[in-house]
Amino acid sequence: MIISRIEDYREAARRRLPRFLFDYIDGGAGAEQTLAANIADLAQVRLKQRVLAHVENLSLETEWFGRRVSLPVVLGPVGLTGMFWRRGEAAVARAAAAAGVPYAPSTVSVCAIEEIAAQSAAPLWFQLYVLKDRGFMRSVLERAQEVGVTTLVFTVDLPVIGTRWRDAHSGLAGPFKTERQLFQALGKPAWAWDVGVCGRPHDLGNISHYLGRRTGLEDYLGWINANMDPSIGWSDLEWLRNFWKGPLIIKGVLTPEDARDAARLGAEAIVVSNHGGRQLDGAASTARALPKIRDAIGDDLLIFADSGVRSGVDVLRMLALGAKGVFLGRAQVFALAARGEQGVREMLEMIAQEMRVAMTLTGVSSVEEIDASILDDFQPTS
Amino acid sequence: MIISRIEDYREAARRRLPRFLFDYIDGGAGAEQTLAANIADLAQVRLKQRVLAHVENLSLETEWFGRRVSLPVVLGPVGLTGMFWRRGEAAVARAAAAAGVPYAPSTVSVCAIEEIAAQSAAPLWFQLYVLKDRGFMRSVLERAQEVGVTTLVFTVDLPVIGTRWRDAHSGLAGPFKTERQLFQALGKPAWAWDVGVCGRPHDLGNISHYLGRRTGLEDYLGWINANMDPSIGWSDLEWLRNFWKGPLIIKGVLTPEDARDAARLGAEAIVVSNHGGRQLDGAASTARALPKIRDAIGDDLLIFADSGVRSGVDVLRMLALGAKGVFLGRAQVFALAARGEQGVREMLEMIAQEMRVAMTLTGVSSVEEIDASILDDFQPTS
Amino acid sequence: MIISRIEDYREAARRRLPRFLFDYIDGGAGAEQTLAANIADLAQVRLKQRVLAHVENLSLETEWFGRRVSLPVVLGPVGLTGMFWRRGEAAVARAAAAAGVPYAPSTVSVCAIEEIAAQSAAPLWFQLYVLKDRGFMRSVLERAQEVGVTTLVFTVDLPVIGTRWRDAHSGLAGPFKTERQLFQALGKPAWAWDVGVCGRPHDLGNISHYLGRRTGLEDYLGWINANMDPSIGWSDLEWLRNFWKGPLIIKGVLTPEDARDAARLGAEAIVVSNHGGRQLDGAASTARALPKIRDAIGDDLLIFADSGVRSGVDVLRMLALGAKGVFLGRAQVFALAARGEQGVREMLEMIAQEMRVAMTLTGVSSVEEIDASILDDFQPTS
Amino acid sequence: MIISRIEDYREAARRRLPRFLFDYIDGGAGAEQTLAANIADLAQVRLKQRVLAHVENLSLETEWFGRRVSLPVVLGPVGLTGMFWRRGEAAVARAAAAAGVPYAPSTVSVCAIEEIAAQSAAPLWFQLYVLKDRGFMRSVLERAQEVGVTTLVFTVDLPVIGTRWRDAHSGLAGPFKTERQLFQALGKPAWAWDVGVCGRPHDLGNISHYLGRRTGLEDYLGWINANMDPSIGWSDLEWLRNFWKGPLIIKGVLTPEDARDAARLGAEAIVVSNHGGRQLDGAASTARALPKIRDAIGDDLLIFADSGVRSGVDVLRMLALGAKGVFLGRAQVFALAARGEQGVREMLEMIAQEMRVAMTLTGVSSVEEIDASILDDFQPTS
Ligand SMILES: Cc1cc2nc3c(=O)[nH]c(=O)nc-3n(C[C@H](O)[C@H](O)[C@H](O)COP(=O)(O)O)c2cc1C
Ligand SMILES: Cc1cc2nc3c(=O)[nH]c(=O)nc-3n(C[C@H](O)[C@H](O)[C@H](O)COP(=O)(O)O)c2cc1C
Ligand SMILES: Cc1cc2nc3c(=O)[nH]c(=O)nc-3n(C[C@H](O)[C@H](O)[C@H](O)COP(=O)(O)O)c2cc1C
Ligand SMILES: Cc1cc2nc3c(=O)[nH]c(=O)nc-3n(C[C@H](O)[C@H](O)[C@H](O)COP(=O)(O)O)c2cc1C
Repeated sequence: MIISRIEDYREAARRRLPRFLFDYIDGGAGAEQTLAANIADLAQVRLKQRVLAHVENLSLETEWFGRRVSLPVVLGPVGLTGMFWRRGEAAVARAAAAAGVPYAPSTVSVCAIEEIAAQSAAPLWFQLYVLKDRGFMRSVLERAQEVGVTTLVFTVDLPVIGTRWRDAHSGLAGPFKTERQLFQALGKPAWAWDVGVCGRPHDLGNISHYLGRRTGLEDYLGWINANMDPSIGWSDLEWLRNFWKGPLIIKGVLTPEDARDAARLGAEAIVVSNHGGRQLDGAASTARALPKIRDAIGDDLLIFADSGVRSGVDVLRMLALGAKGVFLGRAQVFALAARGEQGVREMLEMIAQEMRVAMTLTGVSSVEEIDASILDDFQPTS
Repeated sequence: MIISRIEDYREAARRRLPRFLFDYIDGGAGAEQTLAANIADLAQVRLKQRVLAHVENLSLETEWFGRRVSLPVVLGPVGLTGMFWRRGEAAVARAAAAAGVPYAPSTVSVCAIEEIAAQSAAPLWFQLYVLKDRGFMRSVLERAQEVGVTTLVFTVDLPVIGTRWRDAHSGLAGPFKTERQLFQALGKPAWAWDVGVCGRPHDLGNISHYLGRRTGLEDYLGWINANMDPSIGWSDLEWLRNFWKGPLIIKGVLTPEDARDAARLGAEAIVVSNHGGRQLDGAASTARALPKIRDAIGDDLLIFADSGVRSGVDVLRMLALGAKGVFLGRAQVFALAARGEQGVREMLEMIAQEMRVAMTLTGVSSVEEIDASILDDFQPTS
Repeated sequence: MIISRIEDYREAARRRLPRFLFDYIDGGAGAEQTLAANIADLAQVRLKQRVLAHVENLSLETEWFGRRVSLPVVLGPVGLTGMFWRRGEAAVARAAAAAGVPYAPSTVSVCAIEEIAAQSAAPLWFQLYVLKDRGFMRSVLERAQEVGVTTLVFTVDLPVIGTRWRDAHSGLAGPFKTERQLFQALGKPAWAWDVGVCGRPHDLGNISHYLGRRTGLEDYLGWINANMDPSIGWSDLEWLRNFWKGPLIIKGVLTPEDARDAARLGAEAIVVSNHGGRQLDGAASTARALPKIRDAIGDDLLIFADSGVRSGVDVLRMLALGAKGVFLGRAQVFALAARGEQGVREMLEMIAQEMRVAMTLTGVSSVEEIDASILDDFQPTS
Repeated sequence: MIISRIEDYREAARRRLPRFLFDYIDGGAGAEQTLAANIADLAQVRLKQRVLAHVENLSLETEWFGRRVSLPVVLGPVGLTGMFWRRGEAAVARAAAAAGVPYAPSTVSVCAIEEIAAQSAAPLWFQLYVLKDRGFMRSVLERAQEVGVTTLVFTVDLPVIGTRWRDAHSGLAGPFKTERQLFQALGKPAWAWDVGVCGRPHDLGNISHYLGRRTGLEDYLGWINANMDPSIGWSDLEWLRNFWKGPLIIKGVLTPEDARDAARLGAEAIVVSNHGGRQLDGAASTARALPKIRDAIGDDLLIFADSGVRSGVDVLRMLALGAKGVFLGRAQVFALAARGEQGVREMLEMIAQEMRVAMTLTGVSSVEEIDASILDDFQPTS
């Protein structure tokens, strides 16, 4: 397959993965209106071209929490990454280190945080969900600290799992799911061998470790649903803020009110995110939500954003709308599913190269210069 | 068939029903612009996600006219329901009672109101049209009272039948309709046996009862057309208001002016409805009409809404736009046609579950809390 | 074929006519943007439903120039109508008389005005183009008066023929057109017999009569192009106004400025029209142009409108936007091509019936009552 | 193939060219949003039809830099034109001279400027890129002056090549490109013979001449990338302004700021252009950018525009939005690829004819009269 854009990785992943896994990645909540709006609204963000702008020594580097990164991009948390490529999280960690960008593996990774950290010289981030079992939360955070995790991404937009209509259709959930998944896997021998056979064990590494027994993948959605805690409020997080001394990023903020609460808690940063359109269908696209939050919060928090980013131009758009960095979800795992570690590295280079071109054409030579001044009038339509 | 959303019931119904019946349910008036706008405008209603909102003891219950319901949903009136499943109205009544929501069978039901009431311990509602024959109106209302109907839904948006272009194409109307319907039925043996053979008699139960003779289904559209009365005005309804002591709901209101007239008449409630896009093509979607009516009428009337609701998120949207409850038309009968009483129960549980997720994500734990504060800026586009 | 809407006549015409004729009717100028906007903008005109509005004695009659018509509709001028059905203009004239609406045959009709008038007891209108040859203009007007034409429709939006990209593709124009047309006709035997054989002679009746020799159809577009006169201004029409004593309607007005000039000339009426999207591609839809003209011109002129009307609801929309009557172009000739005189009568009855339903649902019982008060907020999008 | 619009030339070119060349012409940068917006926004520019406007002696002539042209159109610079038709630039030069419009061949033409000039009696324009090698710039400008070039088009929107996702897919770039191009050429024998065999040599004429050796086409994109200079600013161009005494046109301006800088530099004119959507994806369409620049710059500069023009009506739209002339990119080379010099001449006549019709219908008889007064309210939607 010829690959020259992120959409090509998606197509390659579609060919390589059993349907239940591809649709798990690709799909969103409900009628997928927010999923579609993420893409459509971002496409409406018009950039202002400048000519003869004397762009010299263009650099994509930036600094977050006192550390330099080579690209204003984070490889964001994606559950079950180890199912898309043999020991997927380890592969992503290597790619991230090679490219000089942070990786924030998910709580519900296949590889345990220890396995991931072992693959990467670079400092690691780690994503944690709001869970009922505080014992697990403390224990996994201690383990994370032990293996050198610097930064905690705390995801707050999953008090329950979003309604995902595709799951039953694809065979991820519903009757005969085991049989259907097996049958689909038979049709994808390359994946079946690489992941199904060589990529074992297939459990939720972090959780198995804590429980002291294998957590079958079958229980994935069940486990999440059983352990999410909708009754938690901001004040219940004070212990976490006290416990975690490193930078704390609150992921899943869509309103100025919630952003202000994150600042009040003492977080260093937020991710403006609708979880890639996987949680509340009908929620605003992040292209819409971001500028309002930016305006309300000023420089009180470092702002990241994600959801819908599919090119280097999209990264630029998010930065122009007010973010200081961008998380990549599907772009990351489509590239991984298509070509493994190599795919993620190439994908990052693709993003970098597209950014260089777009920055040159908008007349900026550093990430710090990117702001609303490179926007043409923005009018989202979806 | 895998069913994980209301659209799936539609597809299942399409497979099971003869085309003339499927299209009768699915279609709308004229070029179906209002039908499409109902869906499109509702999809544009953006919800505001809130995180860490401390959602505990989430409940879907609410109270109307002094009675509690377990879900802010009414199974609305749909003519000929008994043609979509064997003794369809009776089946819906059982599902409604089991789920704890009201059912308002249509004047032009296949089962007579007595047959429907016999199936359900729960209190029943009943829908009445504006008819030329006041004798019939009084008589059917007396019968309704006798079998325990508590609440009257009085439908006012059908002074004539809307122009439905599909009817002639599908075989519901037009030349050779009997032959075409028979032929179509032959292609759907499951339906033919269940409804065509075992579901008899196929007449308009309430009307046959009154006339003292069988009213063939052939005469359905003809009967309606002959008995609708466009010359009636609000003042002609005073007798009805005096006659009916229970709650009176005026169904089919799309303007603040008409809503105010309903209040003046002494009605307790209205349904903001364009009859599912089946009457005036070119009329506003209810997502557009509802907020204006809400603003004009305040709390003078209990406001229900329908037309275009296809998910639990859509129910939430209608409540956020100003309704206190939502009627389900097609969602109900697609589920019924697909899987009978069981289908309607599952469909209601699906709606309930989707509502729970969406309420958690918008940070509300009771129906009473849902209002415009959970809306992001709303800009209908169709 | 089942026919329950005007779009069905279009499909039936497509099946019956050789492609060069179907595309001649169906197509528009350039990229057909105005053609599409006519339909799309009209679909955006939302009507206000009213209930219990006491609609009694609904009537579609209205009065223009002191004469009553049974429907606020004119069968507008369509060149070459006699090519779509055997002696087409005569057939339309009979249908118009039967339905009680005016017919305004085109200058470039197949049947001469004498043949048309002979078919119709009812008073006839007549359409005239701005032509180089004033002798022809005078002579044809005298003939029109002689056969009892009451009203002159003077079309001013054709100083040149619009750029019609389809013509070369369909075979109406371009190399080998004769051969291609013949070949296409062979594929449509019903048409070939009815029109090709029995419908002769195929010339431009009015022009042959004047020239005293047959004008071959081959020369149709050529003749028009050669005889149109772009150099004419309003002042050059004074002779016409003096010459023609009956009502004069200026057809093809799209701006308030031109409407005011028509009033200044002494015309009684205008047709707000973009010639069905066949002249200036990029011109506004009439749904857009009409309200501005209505506001500017008040009651100084009787306002007609056309372009894009495909249903009784569309007629209502045009009246609500400010017209007192609507011309039908394609609706008329698609019905004619599909089913001859009978088709035109059925089509008019379809329009009438759709109007009755829509008027009842908007709460008006006479054409005079229809105005902007039955509009919901109108926001054209194309 | 029947050709009656520019889109038809595109289809004809698609059939005749190997895919890598067709996609090279047809494609744009990134997700091709700007490419699509060019067309969509232009289609939204509504023209005001005027009737009886007394249009006499209509003329398409205009004057730029003291010279009359017969049509307000320039055949713009398109790299590699000689690959689309045998000695393509020479063919275009002949067509331009015959039609009386300027031609501005590209720096990266196949034919050297000397070969092009030899074909054309008419005065020639010449396009130059901002290049690292000032020696080359001076040398090529001297050569241009020698062969009689009157006007310099200096393109500033290519400090780097835009990200063109199609190139790898089409085979223009990427692995096995040589093999793939060869294979594609085999499938297009007419092209292979005409261009592949008889159209040699296939190098970049101007550059080979300077380097004193053949520059293989393989190096085309590489050469451009290596020689573009993003570090140049406006002040670095003063030597150029001093060096070039004739009219200087800055091509690739999209903002009022850059237009003002061009004026400050002492340029006579600008081309408002986004390079046909080939550079910054996400940049505004020119239909959007043009009026703002027109308003800011007044008559200080002569304004040209391009990007998205596909008809004579589009030319009129650009003039109405504020341009005094229009460059044609794809329209030119699709016509060339389809039918050579003859195609370009026919295409220009098509544009001229469409302009005549549209001018007549908007009531203007000279290019100078065309301005915002022929616009209906303009509201771009993309
Ligand atoms: C398959 C999948 C699994 C995900 N799992 C997690 C997760 O475990 N934790 C988390 O915080 N976010 C998770 N996300 C959300 C991503 O971190 C990110 O917010 C989202 O994918 C951004 O949208 P994009 O995919 O359009 O870039 C997941 C997303 C996908 C697509
Ligand atoms: C097949 C069908 C028959 C209907 N019959 C009736 C009826 O007899 N009485 C009535 O008040 N409404 C009737 N309605 C309207 C519904 O009560 C309801 O207003 C509408 O279906 C809501 O739109 P929805 O289908 O998009 O939910 C009918 C609707 C459908 C689809
Ligand atoms: C095939 C065709 C021929 C036409 N010929 C004439 C004509 O000869 N004279 C005239 O005034 N208008 C003519 N028109 C324009 C119509 O009178 C009318 O303005 C237009 O069709 C209205 O748009 P509609 O077709 O969408 O209703 C013609 C229209 C069509 C479609
Ligand atoms: C295949 C191709 C090659 C081009 N090469 C050049 C070039 O060498 N120099 C230049 O200034 N512009 C170049 N352009 C841009 C055109 O001059 C022009 O700005 C653009 O094509 C206008 O958009 P349009 O194609 O929609 O008319 C090129 C355009 C195309 C399509």
